Amino acid sequence: MNILLPVRDALDVINGKWKLQIIIAINNGNKRFKDIERQIPGITARMLSKELKDLESHQLIKRTVYDTLPVSVEYTPTPHAATLMPLIEALKEWGTLHRKKILKDKA
Amino acid sequence: MNILLPVRDALDVINGKWKLQIIIAINNGNKRFKDIERQIPGITARMLSKELKDLESHQLIKRTVYDTLPVSVEYTPTPHAATLMPLIEALKEWGTLHRKKILKDKA
Repeated sequence: MNILLPVRDALDVINGKWKLQIIIAINNGNKRFKDIERQIPGITARMLSKELKDLESHQLIKRTVYDTLPVSVEYTPTPHAATLMPLIEALKEWGTLHRKKILKDKA
Repeated sequence: MNILLPVRDALDVINGKWKLQIIIAINNGNKRFKDIERQIPGITARMLSKELKDLESHQLIKRTVYDTLPVSVEYTPTPHAATLMPLIEALKEWGTLHRKKILKDKA
């Protein structure tokens, strides 16, 4: 079952309610904490900062601190984040196909 | 963010610790409850029967009851389960790539 470990690794990174929404929001050009927060209804500031730290440790986003007054912080996707897109696409395709199949058979 | 709903659908089906292991075990030809159970260290009989029911409701496995004495039950993958394989492959590929990236940068 050597297929399971890498699959588990991938699921651990993209799992949970918020991670993908944050990656997509940042990918869409939302750089500031408040901008990202506004894109994700229901997320708390505390949860967002925890998930941003997690995504940073997974090297999917980059945090840049600017020496302005007050200090400003921006989040941008890393090149590594781009490698996630085919997987997100595969999830989207299978989710769409699965929903059609289940709804069709219930009709 | 219309990408999120189908991605959420897909993650809800393949999520959790056991589902993928069960799908892979059945895909590898394990048909009987005991055979499947033996393939998945740590799963309880109660958990396996719950997950089998769930996978059946998602039309990923088929449960066939044979009128033998005693009655025997077999689980086989449905054609719909085959559509999961490209997604499992994409998860495996990204998980492998991600692990290499994180380990390389830590070295």
